[in-house]
Amino acid sequence: MDIHAIQERLREFAAERDWEQFHSPKNLAMALSVEVAELLEHFQWLTEQQSVSPESIDTDEIATEIADTQIYLIMLADKLGVDIEKAVHAKIDTNAKKYPAASG
Amino acid sequence: MDIHAIQERLREFAAERDWEQFHSPKNLAMALSVEVAELLEHFQWLTEQQSVSPESIDTDEIATEIADTQIYLIMLADKLGVDIEKAVHAKIDTNAKKYPAASG
Amino acid sequence: MDIHAIQERLREFAAERDWEQFHSPKNLAMALSVEVAELLEHFQWLTEQQSVSPESIDTDEIATEIADTQIYLIMLADKLGVDIEKAVHAKIDTNAKKYPAASG
Amino acid sequence: MDIHAIQERLREFAAERDWEQFHSPKNLAMALSVEVAELLEHFQWLTEQQSVSPESIDTDEIATEIADTQIYLIMLADKLGVDIEKAVHAKIDTNAKKYPAASG
Repeated sequence: MDIHAIQERLREFAAERDWEQFHSPKNLAMALSVEVAELLEHFQWLTEQQSVSPESIDTDEIATEIADTQIYLIMLADKLGVDIEKAVHAKIDTNAKKYPAASG
Repeated sequence: MDIHAIQERLREFAAERDWEQFHSPKNLAMALSVEVAELLEHFQWLTEQQSVSPESIDTDEIATEIADTQIYLIMLADKLGVDIEKAVHAKIDTNAKKYPAASG
Repeated sequence: MDIHAIQERLREFAAERDWEQFHSPKNLAMALSVEVAELLEHFQWLTEQQSVSPESIDTDEIATEIADTQIYLIMLADKLGVDIEKAVHAKIDTNAKKYPAASG
Repeated sequence: MDIHAIQERLREFAAERDWEQFHSPKNLAMALSVEVAELLEHFQWLTEQQSVSPESIDTDEIATEIADTQIYLIMLADKLGVDIEKAVHAKIDTNAKKYPAASG
């Protein structure tokens, strides 16, 4: 995923609408939280078995909620100068030390 | 960001610990929601001005929360077969139509 | 607030619709989380000053979201046998010890 | 539950610590959201069956999270002048019309 290209699109999108004024990290974190809840809503009354079944869920709508979540996460990381990919690998490294595999 | 490489690491990580049993989309959406709240917690008592200031926030800790959020989002998309990058661009296209720029 | 009377109404409401099957603590906690996000959504792009202003917020709609949140919180406490009022006073006591007032 | 008595305690608590400055509705809604996620965290990896079992959950800790959630909900309602009990009964009335019971 080309995060820089997405960041470029999102910066331009906000600038053209004069929306940068709303995009403080505090507000972006709130918006991220609201989008994740919309994702959660799809699963709240399903059993775990149903939650993986194409018959019980609307994958297109869920893909849109995943996109909304990803968009705000990228905007937040952009504002704070966080390199998401680097942070992800560092966190997986940390988790690997914290939770050694049984077969170790 | 090489999402496939991250998915590979995360699949292997879960398999080695026998954690796949916990990773239903329902549970992953819950875990995602919990991580986003940990991100939100960093900003809850800050003003918007403070939320962008390196003096008020711990960027390293926030990077770790962003990583946790990204990790669960990638795991959820993986389980559901969602192409995040494609979904993100489709959503920005939709938003561009929904909210036309003032300047046309 | 007569919590027992509300619990009675909610139990009857669920029983008449055969919805108890969906009301595991896990699911109720998810539903609670979704409702709180709907509350959060009202405030996400407002400044703190605007968030207290009757001109910027729709108090009737927010009251409805507060009600939804309270309803799921009562249902969850009911399922788990938690006495909310007692728990609230115990928590304020704990906080008073943890954060002594400056004036002593 | 005597909400007015709790509001009195919470107002006094905040005033003694000079914390009213942080308690905008926007910030209280964020804090509420963070507390609900701490509640959610107890249930994220449990099955629905486990989520109701005293052997799988720590009811005392969950009671404390329920208390935290109730406290911020009361503070938010207090700031906005919302009568929670009245709002709850109005919402149950609305739901009863929206979702008629099968047995009519």
